[in-house]
Amino acid sequence: MAGTIEAYAPAGGPRLADLARFQKVRALSLALAADLSDADASAQSMPDASPAKWHLAHTSWFFETFVLRDHVPGYVAHDSAWAFLFNSYYEAEGDRIARAERGMLTRPSLDHVRAYRAHVDAALAAAWPTLPEPARVLVELGCHHEEQHQELLLTDLLHLFSRNPLAPAAWPARLRFACPQPGPIRWIEGGTGEARIGHAGGGFAFDCEGPEHGVWLHPHALADRLVTNAEWRAFIDDGGYRTAGLWLSDGWAWVRSEGVEAPAYWRRDEAAEFSMRFALDGLGKIDPASPVRHVSYYEADAYARWAGARLPTEAEWETAAAGLDPAAGTFLDGAGAIGTLPAPEGEGLRQMFGDAWEWTASAYLAHPGFRAVEGAVGEYNGKFMSGQFVLKGGSCATPRGHARASYRNFFYPHQRWQFTGVRLAKDL
Amino acid sequence: MAGTIEAYAPAGGPRLADLARFQKVRALSLALAADLSDADASAQSMPDASPAKWHLAHTSWFFETFVLRDHVPGYVAHDSAWAFLFNSYYEAEGDRIARAERGMLTRPSLDHVRAYRAHVDAALAAAWPTLPEPARVLVELGCHHEEQHQELLLTDLLHLFSRNPLAPAAWPARLRFACPQPGPIRWIEGGTGEARIGHAGGGFAFDCEGPEHGVWLHPHALADRLVTNAEWRAFIDDGGYRTAGLWLSDGWAWVRSEGVEAPAYWRRDEAAEFSMRFALDGLGKIDPASPVRHVSYYEADAYARWAGARLPTEAEWETAAAGLDPAAGTFLDGAGAIGTLPAPEGEGLRQMFGDAWEWTASAYLAHPGFRAVEGAVGEYNGKFMSGQFVLKGGSCATPRGHARASYRNFFYPHQRWQFTGVRLAKDL
Amino acid sequence: MAGTIEAYAPAGGPRLADLARFQKVRALSLALAADLSDADASAQSMPDASPAKWHLAHTSWFFETFVLRDHVPGYVAHDSAWAFLFNSYYEAEGDRIARAERGMLTRPSLDHVRAYRAHVDAALAAAWPTLPEPARVLVELGCHHEEQHQELLLTDLLHLFSRNPLAPAAWPARLRFACPQPGPIRWIEGGTGEARIGHAGGGFAFDCEGPEHGVWLHPHALADRLVTNAEWRAFIDDGGYRTAGLWLSDGWAWVRSEGVEAPAYWRRDEAAEFSMRFALDGLGKIDPASPVRHVSYYEADAYARWAGARLPTEAEWETAAAGLDPAAGTFLDGAGAIGTLPAPEGEGLRQMFGDAWEWTASAYLAHPGFRAVEGAVGEYNGKFMSGQFVLKGGSCATPRGHARASYRNFFYPHQRWQFTGVRLAKDL
Amino acid sequence: MAGTIEAYAPAGGPRLADLARFQKVRALSLALAADLSDADASAQSMPDASPAKWHLAHTSWFFETFVLRDHVPGYVAHDSAWAFLFNSYYEAEGDRIARAERGMLTRPSLDHVRAYRAHVDAALAAAWPTLPEPARVLVELGCHHEEQHQELLLTDLLHLFSRNPLAPAAWPARLRFACPQPGPIRWIEGGTGEARIGHAGGGFAFDCEGPEHGVWLHPHALADRLVTNAEWRAFIDDGGYRTAGLWLSDGWAWVRSEGVEAPAYWRRDEAAEFSMRFALDGLGKIDPASPVRHVSYYEADAYARWAGARLPTEAEWETAAAGLDPAAGTFLDGAGAIGTLPAPEGEGLRQMFGDAWEWTASAYLAHPGFRAVEGAVGEYNGKFMSGQFVLKGGSCATPRGHARASYRNFFYPHQRWQFTGVRLAKDL
Repeated sequence: MAGTIEAYAPAGGPRLADLARFQKVRALSLALAADLSDADASAQSMPDASPAKWHLAHTSWFFETFVLRDHVPGYVAHDSAWAFLFNSYYEAEGDRIARAERGMLTRPSLDHVRAYRAHVDAALAAAWPTLPEPARVLVELGCHHEEQHQELLLTDLLHLFSRNPLAPAAWPARLRFACPQPGPIRWIEGGTGEARIGHAGGGFAFDCEGPEHGVWLHPHALADRLVTNAEWRAFIDDGGYRTAGLWLSDGWAWVRSEGVEAPAYWRRDEAAEFSMRFALDGLGKIDPASPVRHVSYYEADAYARWAGARLPTEAEWETAAAGLDPAAGTFLDGAGAIGTLPAPEGEGLRQMFGDAWEWTASAYLAHPGFRAVEGAVGEYNGKFMSGQFVLKGGSCATPRGHARASYRNFFYPHQRWQFTGVRLAKDL
Repeated sequence: MAGTIEAYAPAGGPRLADLARFQKVRALSLALAADLSDADASAQSMPDASPAKWHLAHTSWFFETFVLRDHVPGYVAHDSAWAFLFNSYYEAEGDRIARAERGMLTRPSLDHVRAYRAHVDAALAAAWPTLPEPARVLVELGCHHEEQHQELLLTDLLHLFSRNPLAPAAWPARLRFACPQPGPIRWIEGGTGEARIGHAGGGFAFDCEGPEHGVWLHPHALADRLVTNAEWRAFIDDGGYRTAGLWLSDGWAWVRSEGVEAPAYWRRDEAAEFSMRFALDGLGKIDPASPVRHVSYYEADAYARWAGARLPTEAEWETAAAGLDPAAGTFLDGAGAIGTLPAPEGEGLRQMFGDAWEWTASAYLAHPGFRAVEGAVGEYNGKFMSGQFVLKGGSCATPRGHARASYRNFFYPHQRWQFTGVRLAKDL
Repeated sequence: MAGTIEAYAPAGGPRLADLARFQKVRALSLALAADLSDADASAQSMPDASPAKWHLAHTSWFFETFVLRDHVPGYVAHDSAWAFLFNSYYEAEGDRIARAERGMLTRPSLDHVRAYRAHVDAALAAAWPTLPEPARVLVELGCHHEEQHQELLLTDLLHLFSRNPLAPAAWPARLRFACPQPGPIRWIEGGTGEARIGHAGGGFAFDCEGPEHGVWLHPHALADRLVTNAEWRAFIDDGGYRTAGLWLSDGWAWVRSEGVEAPAYWRRDEAAEFSMRFALDGLGKIDPASPVRHVSYYEADAYARWAGARLPTEAEWETAAAGLDPAAGTFLDGAGAIGTLPAPEGEGLRQMFGDAWEWTASAYLAHPGFRAVEGAVGEYNGKFMSGQFVLKGGSCATPRGHARASYRNFFYPHQRWQFTGVRLAKDL
Repeated sequence: MAGTIEAYAPAGGPRLADLARFQKVRALSLALAADLSDADASAQSMPDASPAKWHLAHTSWFFETFVLRDHVPGYVAHDSAWAFLFNSYYEAEGDRIARAERGMLTRPSLDHVRAYRAHVDAALAAAWPTLPEPARVLVELGCHHEEQHQELLLTDLLHLFSRNPLAPAAWPARLRFACPQPGPIRWIEGGTGEARIGHAGGGFAFDCEGPEHGVWLHPHALADRLVTNAEWRAFIDDGGYRTAGLWLSDGWAWVRSEGVEAPAYWRRDEAAEFSMRFALDGLGKIDPASPVRHVSYYEADAYARWAGARLPTEAEWETAAAGLDPAAGTFLDGAGAIGTLPAPEGEGLRQMFGDAWEWTASAYLAHPGFRAVEGAVGEYNGKFMSGQFVLKGGSCATPRGHARASYRNFFYPHQRWQFTGVRLAKDL
């Protein structure tokens, strides 16, 4: 993902979206932005993030360009200048505005962008009955693309609001019941020897998820749940952020240059204790029983070393997830405050899907046999294959139904404005 | 000024504002921002600039803090958190948001800021009959302070809109009649020997304008008008931006590192000629007869060297301006497109006031005998006295009546987002 | 390696060095620096590089600290202040001088460092008969450590001399005979299914080379030789450095920000053609038939995409290298000009060892079951396991005998001051 | 100066050097570098500084280029490539090595540079009898130029050695007798009304020192001596470096970003007290009675504000210095440790010349009527006329006889690696 999943192509052959699916996805984006002011939707708080308005427009540009322009005779672009503004990574589609300049676009306004969405949606609905199959494949792709941007819209908004001293809340906090701290981690043994991972067809997937291929697993076990805030607090209290030996070399340099001493958005209370966190419902208390989130790979790796464990590999995680329901768990179902929840009671692996993206120890590189699709749409998941790590499982900000076992999210090891968490693993 | 005129104290004894004056100033600020969207008013396009919303709120904070809080018993702050947000340089008044972070304040909204203004204005009007004299002095000061921010609001908005590929116009262009190119520069001889400059009392002035003091003038002459766009174009065509020997060492480094090849906001047309400029009325043709604007000190100095002349000193300029009407000329009178105008016909010095701030060859340093006033209000024009140059005369973005001969504007030599121009001088 | 191989521990149980081996390694370091001036040996041309003097002293510090200090009763440190100067990454061993500050150490002089080496060598020789086995293991480790620094000394010196407009030569050029361009690449099919890589014991290896473990190979083939300078020139002439679609996203940003248009040290001739290169024998002609060197991972990856191929994985490379003699090939045997040589005639895989380090498509991460050794010596190969890629096979600057199939060198994808080259691979 | 006084032309008509003067100046440069190693002389510790070798070569390049090449028929350049290496600011003389890259020149060696000096000196001595008058003027200029570089050589060496944890001493410390702390500052009233400053002819001067011109003085007094280390310590102890209100805005930003808390080269002792300083004689105790040195303009200005005073203007200083002997005081007379000395007993102004360059409150700008000389030699003192402040009087590192009342040294307000100190002034 990484603000980077800007194009791809289905890895398992054509799949057709239906119009209702399209309309539902489009409606969620609008709902997420419904309470934002024009200013909220226009500001860019860092180069990694984009304004909400940009997400809303860019996802529409995708449908306008690759479906309406290319497959609907006589379609007239909403505004020809906007292709320049709301293109993102598609070098093949010509110039685009520099990523770090997106906050300069105070115009078009949020209302104009909403009108753009309506224009595109109406044109697509009108064209639907006669849309050729390749265009329907692109609509399906565009829906998944938009779901990715729904998550980014939320995490970028969170980052923006975190910079405002007034600590504004996008939505009111949800009622929370005090949850008991989950019991100690139990280790769930994984498979050994040859296994197969990667998308095998039978449903939508991005190109980088395939092809399916063999891997060799070594004796190992996975933690049955995610690391909690209470456990992370113990790491802090034990001097985790001050102990060079726990950190990767690059991670230690990052800790020192950035003055890192806790997960992103953790805040000290008046007693200087880390008991508070900022979220889209504003300032609130850290829930000790819930999974930690907004930690970087460097932090995840250091924590695992401190805990005498390690992070899982992508193959270990993906084989373990094979039989689980990827749509069950704490996901995004609509506009409103979002957050992680304590692990439910029970046996076996829990929280594999939803709650927080799980850092793996695997670099984001091509699966054996991977080939990027030709053309602008195929530009690319492949071009981000250096320096990033794979994350699995989705988060509480991921639209429900978007994740699957083969899904590969990816970020640089220092990034942590996403809902990123930690599951431990160990050798057996 | 320099985004820096954040406090000062009258240099010539108390002067009382009347309520109508206050209300007129306040109304102009609102008028300037009347057509801005919430997003337009919230974005910050560079650390030197501030959002329009911030200017509107900060000027209100000044009245709320130094007049209402300090002099009106029982006044209740509009929102106590805002003092933190909209304070600027006043270290004595406690913490404040980092200058480069002002664009993160998507909330409070523009409408909330307008309500803040109304709250402050109403409170001040209600308190007016019983306001003690020191408070009225501060109101007068606050009016001048706000006038400075009116100019900054316009220049910051211009910078923001210049970054938008859609080239939005804040206001429609005014009708323009083709003006003949003014005749060649005529040299107006200045005084020699002892002279006196600096504010002498008898009207408002900022602390740094005084005290009045003697200087020694050397035989010299000033150009009778400002350098025009056509003359600047000749400088470009003669390779001015590519000739190291014309430039100060720091200026040459700036030209090369920034790739400077024309005044700010000049744009190439389709034939790659510099015939276009961006302004608050959008993209338009450069008027050859009008004064050049948006040039840095480095450029002004290089141009003067190329022309076989030099820049005037502050003392030369100020003594020459002594008998002229500082309210006559091309100034800001209300909301709407602004710009420089060709020199009027006639004899003697023209365009001394208005049109464009004139770079002088004088560093912005203390006048002999200068002392900063005590306290937060007195923080400071004085603290900016290193590395900057003095500019004189006001510009087309300066509210009419704000300028005077002793007025000292100041900016760093590389800055050029203000309406800055050039008058030549030479030794006799 | 990566200027990073600063500690490790044997992965396959103790191995004892003999004194002659130690003395031979120590003598080579001195020989490499024999013709350097004090100034040559003291300058640091970039933060990634270290002065030759520092390499000579740091390798001695290793023996002094971990062998003499810890295992030889009564040993008196040569100069106690030097431990601070010549420590490198060992956080566990206390403070050390910042890496980027090493060029400030104009003292101690090169001659003093040579005296330090003599002091350490004499003490170790005297202690040899009674040295306990753990200390002998550390001597063996120290010899491998010093061999790594011998290569770095050469590549750092090359970088330094490349910055001198006089283009000084460290050694005279060797006689070269015109070599025919090797024939087109032939593809050598590799194994499929389960295979085993990683160090299995039976000889020295660094900790990160183990443990031996299973991998799963997919049908593939490797090129029989390295990519040549002539082939790279065709990539340039075809616009390779100007075609965004060939590059990883990070790579394309690097090409543009650094203005990259050819391998490091390639120079244009008077006709602006890339026919020259700088090397330790000074300026010379590029040999079209020899392997390209000093290319980054980004360049290697882009070249492979342009060629319709890909880079090999570490597992593919290592299994293919299993039966080959790691000490045969173009390696470093003594002081003097170094360089790559054209592929010898013959069938099968050639140039697998020596000539140029081969970039693999594999990130430098832990082998399954890897555990860093405890203590300062064990600090670490492991701590560099993020963001870097594995290189295999050694180069013409690697001391002969230092490389082996399981050897894992690692650098960041933008680095190219090492002797890095390219072998293509493809899916079958 | 500012490492910037790279060319100039006499301001008062031709003055002829004699050969003995030339040879004496040349000998002092060699003597200052006599004890340096090749490495000491080659390292560059920051972009503002140059290697000693570069100073030795650059000053020779000046004589070779402007005297021997231009005025001695048949002169053969020592090495034609060196003109590129050792040119500095003279754009008119073609390309030159980037300033920050001078530390890369490990070759030519220090011995080669000494041979270069000998070659130039011999050629100039041989040509002397027939040297035309313009050439002799240039020799005189070259001698003053070389004296400037003698001071820079020392201050650059001091900076380099200060970065070495071994704290090497260039020369042994001189014997010091305990000096009593001078009595409190006495104020010496200066002149009022018209006065004349600037070089008036009758001896050598750089172009920027003239022309002589009138100024207008306001009632004021100067401190009779320089601020001492003990007085500076009181400023520190009173929280001077932590009190925002004492500092210029740019100065406060500098204090915070650099973590400044004392003059450069002050060091804390084991009790964390600032009782030690580093100098060219190594680490030693701070002498409380001696003038403070190595302070920036920002520090000087803040100190003056804390002391209820201000810095003198150039005109105040220069008129006060008019009758004093510029060759009396603590100056450089030969190789060996240098330092400031307590003010001698007596009445009136002391320490005006020598000890430490005195920051003035005057920006370094053109004197009225100043015109730079044509040609490469005239490139320029003039081109540094933005952003810098004037310093007066010379220092303990200035060759005796080099300073005079009209002498204008100049540095940026943050720079402090020169021997810079403070004399207070106040309004009357």
